[in-house]
Amino acid sequence: MYRLYDFLSSGNGYKIRLLLSQLKIPFDWIEVDILREETRKSEFLTKNPNGRIPVLEISANQYLVESNAILYYLSQNTSYFPHDSWYDAQVMQWLFFEQYSHEPYIATSRYWLIILNQPEEYQRELEKKKQGGYHALKIMEAHLQTRTFFVNEQYTIADIALYAYTHVAEEGGFNLRSFPSILSWLNRIEQKPDYVPITHRFS
Amino acid sequence: MYRLYDFLSSGNGYKIRLLLSQLKIPFDWIEVDILREETRKSEFLTKNPNGRIPVLEISANQYLVESNAILYYLSQNTSYFPHDSWYDAQVMQWLFFEQYSHEPYIATSRYWLIILNQPEEYQRELEKKKQGGYHALKIMEAHLQTRTFFVNEQYTIADIALYAYTHVAEEGGFNLRSFPSILSWLNRIEQKPDYVPITHRFS
Repeated sequence: MYRLYDFLSSGNGYKIRLLLSQLKIPFDWIEVDILREETRKSEFLTKNPNGRIPVLEISANQYLVESNAILYYLSQNTSYFPHDSWYDAQVMQWLFFEQYSHEPYIATSRYWLIILNQPEEYQRELEKKKQGGYHALKIMEAHLQTRTFFVNEQYTIADIALYAYTHVAEEGGFNLRSFPSILSWLNRIEQKPDYVPITHRFS
Repeated sequence: MYRLYDFLSSGNGYKIRLLLSQLKIPFDWIEVDILREETRKSEFLTKNPNGRIPVLEISANQYLVESNAILYYLSQNTSYFPHDSWYDAQVMQWLFFEQYSHEPYIATSRYWLIILNQPEEYQRELEKKKQGGYHALKIMEAHLQTRTFFVNEQYTIADIALYAYTHVAEEGGFNLRSFPSILSWLNRIEQKPDYVPITHRFS
């Protein structure tokens, strides 16, 4: 059985919980307290030298890290990955967009605001994150204006990866009211079978 | 024939040039001057709304963006991708590591220092990038101490992605002398057939 090292409010961890739930794959869920720096302790660093959750333990001493790499691994031979050379590449494109142009702005702002709960300490840094975060949301909105899901009109790991921090973007200080296509897409995902919210505890 | 929109000194663009060269795939190379903000003009934004090179034009009006997604696309059914569920996932893991934990520190520092050529203007920002960049290099060094390449003792797109900005890390102010396993690995890649340096012009 898979074991997932994770932190409840992490969107990167939630990506894996959501996909495992929708694939109906049971797993052991182990919370690692990132606020107590448990991810910097040597026991954890043997699992991921980069000191980050989520970590998927596939078998004893076999660990996979990087949330979007874990999504890739779990989605092979399922409907959550297209298995067509062009559409597969487009899924990849959105996964890298998420980690480079979306997460560092929206997830980082949310981390400072609601996980560290230090809005004053990070006020200047938060301001600097606004432009990049809204830029990512505008690209998503334009793409979704003519589509139901990101790639091939099919619900894939590209949607799961982008859903994770977009649906809580307002916790990072981003207002989604002027992004109607994003809001419809969020709703569409929330209607999917075996959807679970980010707050759902698996243990 | 593929058309690659790119900028000569870009490591992200170079990843694609290096793989296409090693796959012996001819392509049209079109330089886009990022310093003149040509990537922000509407003609370019129809190719990539995110305003970034590289962009691979696969056929008329069919564009793929995100350097590591392009590597993935081009490497399918070649020896540069393992085609084994566990090793494929590990390649993915390193591609995401590169874009999240390596490029934003090492490539960004190099951009300020040798592309914008503004060491004084960015002095404080450069200092802030040191820790993250050396953290990434330490993780790579530890991994390579017992390996010839990143995944499965096989030269894959994980090596190409990480090579691109690591081999010019010193241009970003990072000293590689204390990373002997990285230095050996760089040499190993430079001995591969059809290797081309980042300075090689394809047109």
